[in-house]
Amino acid sequence: MDAERPFAGEPEDSREAIMRATFVALQQHGYAGLSIQRIADEADLSKSTFYHHFDDKEDLLLSFAQFMLDQFLTVVTLEAEDDPRQTLEALMDIVLAEEFPSVEAETPAEAGEWDILGAYVEVRAQAVQNVEFRAAFTEMDRMLFTQISALIRRGIDRGSFRDVDPDAVAAMVLTVLAGHMFGAATSDENRVNALRTELGHYLQTRVFRPE
Amino acid sequence: MDAERPFAGEPEDSREAIMRATFVALQQHGYAGLSIQRIADEADLSKSTFYHHFDDKEDLLLSFAQFMLDQFLTVVTLEAEDDPRQTLEALMDIVLAEEFPSVEAETPAEAGEWDILGAYVEVRAQAVQNVEFRAAFTEMDRMLFTQISALIRRGIDRGSFRDVDPDAVAAMVLTVLAGHMFGAATSDENRVNALRTELGHYLQTRVFRPE
Repeated sequence: MDAERPFAGEPEDSREAIMRATFVALQQHGYAGLSIQRIADEADLSKSTFYHHFDDKEDLLLSFAQFMLDQFLTVVTLEAEDDPRQTLEALMDIVLAEEFPSVEAETPAEAGEWDILGAYVEVRAQAVQNVEFRAAFTEMDRMLFTQISALIRRGIDRGSFRDVDPDAVAAMVLTVLAGHMFGAATSDENRVNALRTELGHYLQTRVFRPE
Repeated sequence: MDAERPFAGEPEDSREAIMRATFVALQQHGYAGLSIQRIADEADLSKSTFYHHFDDKEDLLLSFAQFMLDQFLTVVTLEAEDDPRQTLEALMDIVLAEEFPSVEAETPAEAGEWDILGAYVEVRAQAVQNVEFRAAFTEMDRMLFTQISALIRRGIDRGSFRDVDPDAVAAMVLTVLAGHMFGAATSDENRVNALRTELGHYLQTRVFRPE
């Protein structure tokens, strides 16, 4: 699977085919219209193959959310290798892109570029009511936060970052990215350029040491 | 209605009773379980009274979202009067509170303090799929953004703020607040203290002039 273009190319196995089909079904029918039959149809698999991999729709969506996070972390890691500053900038560039990575030919014509965001926001919003989703997103948040905080600490240790509080800076950066995702998926107001400028200014003056 | 405590005291009219009932029904049943019958029951009104005020559930939820925004702006305005710095700090204090304002006695026992956030996030997430919700939230975002940008410009004109780009700073502040709302409503990870410290630091070094 090509990390730069999630869902590009042929799926490698039925599990990945189900992930792709979930994504397409979310785009086409939204969370409310998502059914295992539709996902099985889209993946060209039987419902019994589906149930071989997942207990139910909830189990699938939790795996799907984890899959999206893994994809995201893979892209960030690939782009940045082990330079803390580059990694932070890659993270920003991916989330604050003017056009968000989209699925390729499989994308239905009516689907816009923000559909990955939309799928993420719709699935995550279930965590308001559903305790299992809430536990899963809490765990994912914790994992991402720990990684970004450790990254900032590496930057400080190497002398390329100022002596900031890694947790506070990680909270700030991740909250900005989450806010942009939530806003961009639910509104046509586009303030991404202003936001990128301002977050860049914050990182320059608060976090990065002059090179 | 008491702006400091949304939904506190007796509702003034059947429209407000419906708003309160919508809030309670969202807390108890979530977006998926929301029905006009449940709202009418909770408000102790007939369905025909409901339809006197609203065309359908969608119409109601759009009014509900607008109602939440109005409440929010009222509280901010009341707390800050016309001092741009105080207004910006009040906005931060309200959204980045450790405990979010909750409804009082009517709150069901199982409902936590973050329910207003949860209701907002669940309703707003509908805008991923629903074009009318999307248009409504786009308009609300624009209104809020215009007000905050104008507020920052007033701060600059009076010499209490540095010579920043008002749009970029407004985008940054509102995105942080949106990100916190989305995260807090869908995860138990609590980074609000670190976030408040860091956003405060950003405002001190980037926006406010030393007093």
